[in-house]
Amino acid sequence: MTQKAVVLLSGGLDSATTLAVAKANGHQLYGITFDYGQRHIWELEAAKKIAKTVGLEQHIIYKLDLSCFGGSALTDRQIPVPQITEEKLNTNLADQGIPPTYVPARNTIFLSIALGWAEVLGAFHIYLGANAIDYSGYPDCRPEFIQAFENLASLATKAGVEGRQFRIHTPLIHMTKKEIIQKGLALGVDFRLTHSCYSPDEQGVACGRCASCQIRLRGFQEANLQDPIEYQFRPSSSK
Amino acid sequence: MTQKAVVLLSGGLDSATTLAVAKANGHQLYGITFDYGQRHIWELEAAKKIAKTVGLEQHIIYKLDLSCFGGSALTDRQIPVPQITEEKLNTNLADQGIPPTYVPARNTIFLSIALGWAEVLGAFHIYLGANAIDYSGYPDCRPEFIQAFENLASLATKAGVEGRQFRIHTPLIHMTKKEIIQKGLALGVDFRLTHSCYSPDEQGVACGRCASCQIRLRGFQEANLQDPIEYQFRPSSSK
Repeated sequence: MTQKAVVLLSGGLDSATTLAVAKANGHQLYGITFDYGQRHIWELEAAKKIAKTVGLEQHIIYKLDLSCFGGSALTDRQIPVPQITEEKLNTNLADQGIPPTYVPARNTIFLSIALGWAEVLGAFHIYLGANAIDYSGYPDCRPEFIQAFENLASLATKAGVEGRQFRIHTPLIHMTKKEIIQKGLALGVDFRLTHSCYSPDEQGVACGRCASCQIRLRGFQEANLQDPIEYQFRPSSSK
Repeated sequence: MTQKAVVLLSGGLDSATTLAVAKANGHQLYGITFDYGQRHIWELEAAKKIAKTVGLEQHIIYKLDLSCFGGSALTDRQIPVPQITEEKLNTNLADQGIPPTYVPARNTIFLSIALGWAEVLGAFHIYLGANAIDYSGYPDCRPEFIQAFENLASLATKAGVEGRQFRIHTPLIHMTKKEIIQKGLALGVDFRLTHSCYSPDEQGVACGRCASCQIRLRGFQEANLQDPIEYQFRPSSSK
Protein backbone atom coordinates (compact mmCIF):
# COMPACT_ATOMS: atom_id res chain seq x y z
CA MET A 1 0.00 0.00 0.00
CA THR A 2 1.23 3.47 -0.85
CA GLN A 3 2.25 5.38 2.25
CA LYS A 4 1.00 8.90 2.70
CA ALA A 5 3.45 11.73 3.28
CA VAL A 6 2.93 15.36 4.25
CA VAL A 7 5.44 17.62 2.50
CA LEU A 8 6.17 21.19 3.62
CA LEU A 9 6.30 23.19 0.42
CA SER A 10 7.54 26.77 0.62
CA GLY A 11 7.90 27.44 -3.08
CA GLY A 12 11.69 27.55 -2.89
CA LEU A 13 14.25 25.41 -4.63
CA ASP A 14 14.88 23.22 -1.58
CA SER A 15 11.29 22.29 -0.86
CA ALA A 16 10.58 21.67 -4.56
CA THR A 17 13.47 19.20 -4.58
CA THR A 18 12.27 17.65 -1.31
CA LEU A 19 8.83 17.14 -2.86
CA ALA A 20 10.47 15.40 -5.81
CA VAL A 21 12.38 13.10 -3.41
CA ALA A 22 9.14 12.23 -1.59
CA LYS A 23 7.50 11.48 -4.93
CA ALA A 24 10.45 9.33 -6.00
CA ASN A 25 10.09 7.44 -2.71
CA GLY A 26 6.63 6.43 -3.86
CA HIS A 27 4.50 8.31 -1.33
CA GLN A 28 0.98 9.56 -1.79
CA LEU A 29 1.62 13.30 -1.47
CA TYR A 30 -0.08 15.91 0.72
CA GLY A 31 1.45 19.37 0.47
CA ILE A 32 1.20 22.15 3.03
CA THR A 33 2.32 25.72 2.38
CA PHE A 34 2.31 28.34 5.10
CA ASP A 35 1.00 31.82 4.47
CA TYR A 36 2.55 33.23 7.65
CA GLY A 37 2.83 36.92 6.98
CA GLN A 38 6.04 36.74 4.96
CA ARG A 39 6.91 39.95 3.13
CA HIS A 40 5.72 38.90 -0.31
CA ILE A 41 3.31 36.47 -1.97
CA TRP A 42 5.63 35.15 -4.68
CA GLU A 43 6.66 32.17 -2.60
CA LEU A 44 3.02 31.15 -2.26
CA GLU A 45 2.41 31.53 -5.98
CA ALA A 46 5.48 29.41 -6.67
CA ALA A 47 4.29 26.72 -4.25
CA LYS A 48 0.91 26.53 -5.98
CA LYS A 49 2.51 26.12 -9.41
CA ILE A 50 4.91 23.45 -8.19
CA ALA A 51 2.10 21.53 -6.47
CA LYS A 52 0.00 21.66 -9.64
CA THR A 53 2.85 20.44 -11.83
CA VAL A 54 3.85 17.56 -9.54
CA GLY A 55 0.26 16.46 -8.88
CA LEU A 56 -0.61 16.08 -5.18
CA GLU A 57 -3.54 14.33 -3.53
CA GLN A 58 -4.17 17.59 -1.73
CA HIS A 59 -2.40 20.92 -1.31
CA ILE A 60 -3.39 23.32 1.43
CA ILE A 61 -2.31 26.89 1.98
CA TYR A 62 -2.35 27.26 5.75
CA LYS A 63 -2.79 30.76 7.06
CA LEU A 64 -1.28 31.84 10.34
CA ASP A 65 0.27 35.11 11.32
CA LEU A 66 3.86 35.10 12.54
CA SER A 67 4.28 38.76 11.61
CA CYS A 68 2.26 39.80 14.68
CA PHE A 69 5.23 38.74 16.79
CA GLY A 70 7.88 40.36 14.59
CA GLY A 71 11.49 39.62 15.40
CA SER A 72 12.57 38.62 11.89
CA ALA A 73 13.62 40.33 8.68
CA LEU A 74 11.22 38.01 6.83
CA THR A 75 8.11 39.13 8.70
CA ASP A 76 8.96 42.62 9.93
CA ARG A 77 9.59 45.40 7.42
CA GLN A 78 11.48 47.36 10.05
CA ILE A 79 14.30 44.79 9.99
CA PRO A 80 16.35 44.93 6.78
CA VAL A 81 16.96 41.79 4.73
CA PRO A 82 20.71 41.17 4.79
CA GLN A 83 22.87 41.30 1.72
CA ILE A 84 25.98 39.25 1.62
CA THR A 85 29.47 40.04 0.41
CA GLU A 86 31.35 37.86 -2.07
CA GLU A 87 33.98 37.32 0.59
CA LYS A 88 31.42 36.15 3.17
CA LEU A 89 29.83 33.90 0.58
CA ASN A 90 33.11 32.06 0.19
CA THR A 91 33.45 31.22 3.87
CA ASN A 92 31.44 28.68 5.78
CA LEU A 93 28.09 30.42 6.12
CA ALA A 94 26.90 28.16 8.90
CA ASP A 95 29.72 29.49 11.08
CA GLN A 96 28.59 33.10 10.79
CA GLY A 97 25.90 32.99 13.44
CA ILE A 98 22.16 33.17 13.10
CA PRO A 99 21.06 35.69 10.47
CA PRO A 100 18.25 38.27 10.94
CA THR A 101 16.10 36.24 8.54
CA TYR A 102 15.67 33.67 11.33
CA VAL A 103 11.95 33.53 12.24
CA PRO A 104 11.51 32.54 15.90
CA ALA A 105 10.38 28.90 16.24
CA ARG A 106 9.21 28.83 12.61
CA ASN A 107 10.05 25.22 11.80
CA THR A 108 8.72 24.05 15.18
CA ILE A 109 5.42 25.74 14.42
CA PHE A 110 5.28 24.48 10.83
CA LEU A 111 6.20 20.91 11.79
CA SER A 112 3.64 20.91 14.63
CA ILE A 113 0.84 21.89 12.29
CA ALA A 114 2.02 19.39 9.69
CA LEU A 115 2.04 16.76 12.45
CA GLY A 116 -1.57 17.54 13.37
CA TRP A 117 -2.65 17.17 9.75
CA ALA A 118 -0.52 14.05 9.30
CA GLU A 119 -2.15 12.38 12.28
CA VAL A 120 -5.64 13.06 10.93
CA LEU A 121 -4.60 11.76 7.50
CA GLY A 122 -2.88 8.68 8.91
CA ALA A 123 0.39 9.85 7.33
CA PHE A 124 3.52 8.87 9.24
CA HIS A 125 6.05 10.54 6.97
CA ILE A 126 6.70 14.28 7.01
CA TYR A 127 9.16 15.82 4.56
CA LEU A 128 10.96 19.10 5.22
CA GLY A 129 13.56 20.78 3.01
CA ALA A 130 15.77 21.79 5.93
CA ASN A 131 19.41 22.29 5.10
CA ALA A 132 22.22 22.65 7.60
CA ILE A 133 24.92 23.75 5.17
CA ASP A 134 24.21 26.89 3.18
CA TYR A 135 23.44 30.05 5.16
CA SER A 136 22.11 28.05 7.95
CA GLY A 137 22.93 29.23 11.31
CA TYR A 138 19.17 28.52 11.61
CA PRO A 139 18.89 26.30 14.71
CA ASP A 140 15.69 24.69 13.47
CA CYS A 141 17.40 23.34 10.36
CA ARG A 142 19.94 21.25 12.26
CA PRO A 143 19.85 17.45 12.55
CA GLU A 144 19.62 17.55 16.36
CA PHE A 145 16.48 19.69 16.16
CA ILE A 146 14.89 17.33 13.63
CA GLN A 147 15.72 14.34 15.87
CA ALA A 148 14.22 16.09 18.90
CA PHE A 149 11.06 16.86 16.96
CA GLU A 150 10.75 13.26 15.83
CA ASN A 151 11.01 12.14 19.46
CA LEU A 152 8.41 14.70 20.48
CA ALA A 153 5.99 13.53 17.76
CA SER A 154 5.78 10.07 19.34
CA LEU A 155 4.89 11.54 22.73
CA ALA A 156 2.62 14.30 21.42
CA THR A 157 0.08 12.29 19.47
CA LYS A 158 -2.53 9.58 19.95
CA ALA A 159 -0.95 7.63 17.08
CA GLY A 160 2.47 8.02 18.67
CA VAL A 161 1.54 6.77 22.12
CA GLU A 162 -0.31 3.92 20.45
CA GLY A 163 3.00 2.84 18.96
CA ARG A 164 3.16 4.46 15.54
CA GLN A 165 6.41 6.18 14.67
CA PHE A 166 6.36 9.49 12.82
CA ARG A 167 9.39 10.00 10.59
CA ILE A 168 10.63 13.50 9.79
CA HIS A 169 12.52 13.22 6.49
CA THR A 170 15.06 15.91 5.64
CA PRO A 171 16.72 14.48 2.54
CA LEU A 172 18.70 17.69 1.82
CA ILE A 173 20.01 18.35 5.29
CA HIS A 174 23.66 17.57 4.54
CA MET A 175 23.73 18.71 0.89
CA THR A 176 25.32 21.81 -0.57
CA LYS A 177 23.19 24.03 -2.81
CA LYS A 178 25.04 22.60 -5.80
CA GLU A 179 24.13 19.07 -4.76
CA ILE A 180 20.49 20.03 -4.17
CA ILE A 181 20.29 21.54 -7.66
CA GLN A 182 21.83 18.41 -9.18
CA LYS A 183 19.44 16.18 -7.23
CA GLY A 184 16.46 18.30 -8.27
CA LEU A 185 17.44 18.23 -11.92
CA ALA A 186 17.92 14.46 -11.82
CA LEU A 187 14.37 14.16 -10.45
CA GLY A 188 12.90 16.49 -13.05
CA VAL A 189 12.23 19.55 -10.86
CA ASP A 190 11.30 22.58 -12.95
CA PHE A 191 13.39 25.26 -11.24
CA ARG A 192 11.72 27.97 -13.35
CA LEU A 193 8.72 27.58 -11.04
CA THR A 194 10.68 28.08 -7.80
CA HIS A 195 11.15 31.32 -5.93
CA SER A 196 14.04 31.97 -3.52
CA CYS A 197 14.53 35.74 -3.30
CA TYR A 198 13.90 37.57 -0.02
CA SER A 199 13.33 40.95 -1.75
CA PRO A 200 11.71 40.53 -5.17
CA ASP A 201 10.37 43.52 -7.11
CA GLU A 202 6.67 44.15 -7.66
CA GLN A 203 6.54 41.67 -10.52
CA GLY A 204 8.20 39.01 -8.37
CA VAL A 205 11.57 39.23 -10.14
CA ALA A 206 14.42 38.11 -7.90
CA CYS A 207 16.84 40.81 -6.75
CA GLY A 208 20.06 38.86 -7.27
CA ARG A 209 21.63 40.60 -4.29
CA CYS A 210 20.11 39.14 -1.13
CA ALA A 211 21.75 36.24 0.62
CA SER A 212 19.18 33.77 -0.68
CA CYS A 213 19.67 34.85 -4.33
CA GLN A 214 23.44 34.79 -4.02
CA ILE A 215 23.56 31.32 -2.53
CA ARG A 216 21.21 30.08 -5.23
CA LEU A 217 23.22 31.69 -8.02
CA ARG A 218 26.44 30.28 -6.63
CA GLY A 219 24.86 26.81 -6.47
CA PHE A 220 23.96 26.91 -10.15
CA GLN A 221 27.40 28.27 -10.98
CA GLU A 222 29.12 25.47 -9.10
CA ALA A 223 26.90 22.93 -10.83
CA ASN A 224 27.98 24.54 -14.10
CA LEU A 225 24.41 25.40 -14.97
CA GLN A 226 22.41 28.51 -15.80
CA ASP A 227 19.73 29.42 -13.26
CA PRO A 228 16.59 29.55 -15.45
CA ILE A 229 14.80 32.31 -13.49
CA GLU A 230 15.00 36.01 -14.20
CA TYR A 231 17.06 38.38 -12.01
CA GLN A 232 17.11 42.15 -11.69
CA PHE A 233 20.86 41.88 -11.21
CA ARG A 234 23.09 38.95 -12.02
CA PRO A 235 26.62 39.07 -10.60
CA SER A 236 29.23 38.93 -13.37
CA SER A 237 30.76 35.84 -11.80
CA SER A 238 27.54 33.87 -12.33
CA LYS A 239 26.35 32.48 -15.64
CA MET B 1 14.16 42.13 37.54
CA THR B 2 10.73 40.74 36.93
CA GLN B 3 10.85 37.82 34.56
CA LYS B 4 8.41 37.67 31.69
CA ALA B 5 6.15 34.66 31.25
CA VAL B 6 3.87 33.64 28.41
CA VAL B 7 0.71 31.96 29.74
CA LEU B 8 -1.61 29.86 27.58
CA LEU B 9 -5.08 30.94 28.57
CA SER B 10 -8.02 28.91 27.25
CA GLY B 11 -10.74 30.40 29.40
CA GLY B 12 -11.19 27.22 31.41
CA LEU B 13 -10.79 26.64 35.11
CA ASP B 14 -7.33 25.06 34.75
CA SER B 15 -5.72 27.83 32.72
CA ALA B 16 -7.27 30.52 34.94
CA THR B 17 -5.63 28.84 37.94
CA THR B 18 -2.36 28.47 36.03
CA LEU B 19 -2.41 32.20 35.27
CA ALA B 20 -2.91 32.88 38.99
CA VAL B 21 0.09 30.67 39.80
CA ALA B 22 2.24 32.54 37.27
CA LYS B 23 1.12 35.83 38.81
CA ALA B 24 1.89 34.56 42.32
CA ASN B 25 5.35 33.58 41.06
CA GLY B 26 5.94 37.25 40.31
CA HIS B 27 6.12 37.15 36.52
CA GLN B 28 5.29 39.91 34.12
CA LEU B 29 2.38 38.25 32.29
CA TYR B 30 1.74 37.80 28.58
CA GLY B 31 -1.38 35.81 27.78
CA ILE B 32 -2.13 33.94 24.57
CA THR B 33 -5.52 32.46 23.72
CA PHE B 34 -6.07 30.34 20.64
CA ASP B 35 -9.07 30.84 18.42
CA TYR B 36 -8.57 27.54 16.59
CA GLY B 37 -11.98 26.72 15.21
CA GLN B 38 -13.40 25.24 18.40
CA ARG B 39 -17.15 24.67 18.34
CA HIS B 40 -18.13 27.72 20.34
CA ILE B 41 -16.85 31.19 21.27
CA TRP B 42 -17.62 31.10 24.99
CA GLU B 43 -14.14 29.93 25.88
CA LEU B 44 -12.66 32.96 24.11
CA GLU B 45 -15.04 35.34 25.86
CA ALA B 46 -14.10 33.78 29.18
CA ALA B 47 -10.40 34.13 28.43
CA LYS B 48 -10.83 37.84 27.65
CA LYS B 49 -12.67 38.46 30.91
CA ILE B 50 -10.10 36.56 32.97
CA ALA B 51 -7.22 38.43 31.30
CA LYS B 52 -8.90 41.76 31.97
CA THR B 53 -9.52 40.94 35.64
CA VAL B 54 -5.99 39.66 36.31
CA GLY B 55 -4.28 42.46 34.42
CA LEU B 56 -1.74 41.33 31.82
CA GLU B 57 0.99 43.25 30.04
CA GLN B 58 -0.53 41.98 26.82
CA HIS B 59 -3.20 39.47 25.84
CA ILE B 60 -3.42 38.19 22.29
CA ILE B 61 -6.12 36.11 20.67
CA TYR B 62 -4.25 34.05 18.12
CA LYS B 63 -6.26 32.80 15.19
CA LEU B 64 -5.43 29.55 13.46
CA ASP B 65 -7.70 26.96 12.00
CA LEU B 66 -7.42 23.42 13.31
CA SER B 67 -10.96 22.62 12.19
CA CYS B 68 -9.77 22.37 8.58
CA PHE B 69 -8.06 19.11 9.54
CA GLY B 70 -10.97 17.71 11.56
CA GLY B 71 -10.35 14.55 13.54
CA SER B 72 -11.69 15.81 16.87
CA ALA B 73 -15.06 16.23 18.55
CA LEU B 74 -13.97 19.74 19.54
CA THR B 75 -13.40 20.97 16.00
CA ASP B 76 -15.61 18.73 13.87
CA ARG B 77 -19.38 18.82 14.33
CA GLN B 78 -19.66 15.39 12.70
CA ILE B 79 -17.97 13.83 15.76
CA PRO B 80 -20.20 13.84 18.86
CA VAL B 81 -18.93 15.25 22.15
CA PRO B 82 -18.84 12.34 24.61
CA GLN B 83 -20.99 12.21 27.69
CA ILE B 84 -19.75 10.25 30.63
CA THR B 85 -21.54 7.85 32.96
CA GLU B 86 -21.45 8.21 36.74
CA GLU B 87 -19.77 4.81 36.90
CA LYS B 88 -17.04 5.82 34.45
CA LEU B 89 -16.51 9.06 36.34
CA ASN B 90 -15.65 7.09 39.44
CA THR B 91 -12.88 5.06 37.80
CA ASN B 92 -9.48 6.36 36.80
CA LEU B 93 -10.29 8.44 33.73
CA ALA B 94 -6.72 8.50 32.52
CA ASP B 95 -6.90 4.71 32.10
CA GLN B 96 -9.84 4.86 29.72
CA GLY B 97 -7.91 5.66 26.58
CA ILE B 98 -7.76 8.83 24.56
CA PRO B 99 -11.20 10.46 24.21
CA PRO B 100 -12.66 11.82 20.92
CA THR B 101 -12.15 15.36 22.25
CA TYR B 102 -8.42 14.90 21.64
CA VAL B 103 -7.31 17.46 19.00
CA PRO B 104 -4.33 16.12 17.01
CA ALA B 105 -1.08 17.79 18.08
CA ARG B 106 -2.96 20.67 19.70
CA ASN B 107 -0.63 21.35 22.59
CA THR B 108 2.43 20.92 20.37
CA ILE B 109 1.05 23.56 18.02
CA PHE B 110 0.01 25.90 20.84
CA LEU B 111 3.33 25.57 22.68
CA SER B 112 5.27 26.13 19.45
CA ILE B 113 3.47 29.38 18.74
CA ALA B 114 3.86 30.44 22.37
CA LEU B 115 7.56 29.65 22.07
CA GLY B 116 7.91 31.88 19.00
CA TRP B 117 6.27 34.77 20.81
CA ALA B 118 8.26 34.09 23.99
CA GLU B 119 11.52 34.24 22.08
CA VAL B 120 10.63 37.61 20.55
CA LEU B 121 9.58 38.92 23.98
CA GLY B 122 12.66 37.56 25.72
CA ALA B 123 10.39 35.47 27.96
CA PHE B 124 11.90 32.18 29.10
CA HIS B 125 8.93 30.91 31.09
CA ILE B 126 5.87 29.41 29.45
CA TYR B 127 2.89 28.32 31.57
CA LEU B 128 0.42 25.68 30.45
CA GLY B 129 -2.53 24.33 32.44
CA ALA B 130 -1.94 20.72 31.36
CA ASN B 131 -3.27 18.11 33.72
CA ALA B 132 -2.47 14.42 33.59
CA ILE B 133 -5.07 13.25 36.09
CA ASP B 134 -8.67 14.04 35.23
CA TYR B 135 -9.98 12.79 31.90
CA SER B 136 -6.58 12.91 30.45
CA GLY B 137 -5.73 10.18 28.21
CA TYR B 138 -4.51 13.23 26.21
CA PRO B 139 -0.90 12.38 25.32
CA ASP B 140 0.08 16.04 25.09
CA CYS B 141 -0.83 16.66 28.73
CA ARG B 142 1.62 14.14 30.14
CA PRO B 143 4.87 15.04 31.91
CA GLU B 144 7.02 13.16 29.38
CA PHE B 145 5.57 15.26 26.55
CA ILE B 146 6.23 18.49 28.45
CA GLN B 147 9.80 17.40 29.13
CA ALA B 148 10.34 16.56 25.45
CA PHE B 149 8.98 19.95 24.42
CA GLU B 150 11.28 21.71 26.86
CA ASN B 151 14.24 19.85 25.35
CA LEU B 152 13.08 20.76 21.86
CA ALA B 153 12.76 24.46 22.76
CA SER B 154 16.47 24.68 23.51
CA LEU B 155 17.37 23.22 20.12
CA ALA B 156 14.67 25.04 18.14
CA THR B 157 15.48 28.64 18.96
CA LYS B 158 18.25 31.19 18.60
CA ALA B 159 18.00 31.93 22.33
CA GLY B 160 18.17 28.22 23.11
CA VAL B 161 21.28 27.48 21.08
CA GLU B 162 22.85 30.60 22.58
CA GLY B 163 22.46 28.97 25.97
CA ARG B 164 19.15 30.25 27.35
CA GLN B 165 16.85 27.65 28.85
CA PHE B 166 13.12 27.83 28.20
CA ARG B 167 11.06 26.42 31.06
CA ILE B 168 7.60 24.96 30.41
CA HIS B 169 5.70 25.26 33.68
CA THR B 170 2.72 22.97 34.25
CA PRO B 171 1.88 23.63 37.90
CA LEU B 172 -1.35 21.60 37.78
CA ILE B 173 -0.07 18.52 36.04
CA HIS B 174 -0.31 16.18 39.02
CA MET B 175 -3.33 17.76 40.74
CA THR B 176 -6.87 16.45 40.89
CA LYS B 177 -9.70 18.79 39.88
CA LYS B 178 -10.51 19.25 43.56
CA GLU B 179 -6.95 20.35 44.27
CA ILE B 180 -6.96 22.72 41.30
CA ILE B 181 -10.14 24.35 42.55
CA GLN B 182 -8.69 24.71 46.03
CA LYS B 183 -5.47 26.19 44.60
CA GLY B 184 -7.42 28.61 42.42
CA LEU B 185 -9.59 29.76 45.30
CA ALA B 186 -6.54 30.29 47.49
CA LEU B 187 -5.07 32.51 44.77
CA GLY B 188 -8.28 34.48 44.29
CA VAL B 189 -9.40 33.08 40.92
CA ASP B 190 -12.93 34.15 40.06
CA PHE B 191 -14.37 30.87 38.80
CA ARG B 192 -17.55 32.64 37.70
CA LEU B 193 -15.55 33.92 34.73
CA THR B 194 -14.32 30.50 33.61
CA HIS B 195 -15.93 28.30 30.98
CA SER B 196 -15.40 24.52 30.82
CA CYS B 197 -18.40 23.03 28.96
CA TYR B 198 -17.90 21.33 25.59
CA SER B 199 -21.55 21.85 24.54
CA PRO B 200 -23.00 25.08 25.95
CA ASP B 201 -26.36 26.43 24.78
CA GLU B 202 -26.75 29.54 22.66
CA GLN B 203 -26.36 31.80 25.68
CA GLY B 204 -23.19 30.01 26.72
CA VAL B 205 -24.78 28.16 29.64
CA ALA B 206 -22.94 24.95 30.48
CA CYS B 207 -24.77 21.70 29.72
CA GLY B 208 -23.87 19.88 32.94
CA ARG B 209 -23.75 16.58 31.08
CA CYS B 210 -20.58 16.51 29.01
CA ALA B 211 -17.40 15.00 30.40
CA SER B 212 -15.85 18.39 31.05
CA CYS B 213 -18.90 19.66 33.03
CA GLN B 214 -19.12 16.46 35.05
CA ILE B 215 -15.48 16.47 36.02
CA ARG B 216 -15.75 20.12 37.01
CA LEU B 217 -18.91 19.57 39.05
CA ARG B 218 -17.37 16.59 40.79
CA GLY B 219 -14.29 18.67 41.61
CA PHE B 220 -16.38 21.32 43.33
CA GLN B 221 -18.38 18.63 45.10
CA GLU B 222 -15.23 16.95 46.42
CA ALA B 223 -13.92 20.33 47.57
CA ASN B 224 -17.23 20.76 49.36
CA LEU B 225 -17.99 23.90 47.39
CA GLN B 226 -20.70 25.15 45.09
CA ASP B 227 -19.67 25.74 41.49
CA PRO B 228 -20.65 29.41 40.96
CA ILE B 229 -21.50 29.10 37.25
CA GLU B 230 -24.94 28.36 35.84
CA TYR B 231 -25.85 24.95 34.41
CA GLN B 232 -28.72 23.76 32.22
CA PHE B 233 -28.71 20.56 34.22
CA ARG B 234 -27.07 19.91 37.57
CA PRO B 235 -26.79 16.26 38.66
CA SER B 236 -28.60 15.64 41.94
CA SER B 237 -25.36 14.37 43.50
CA SER B 238 -23.68 17.75 43.02
CA LYS B 239 -24.32 20.82 45.10
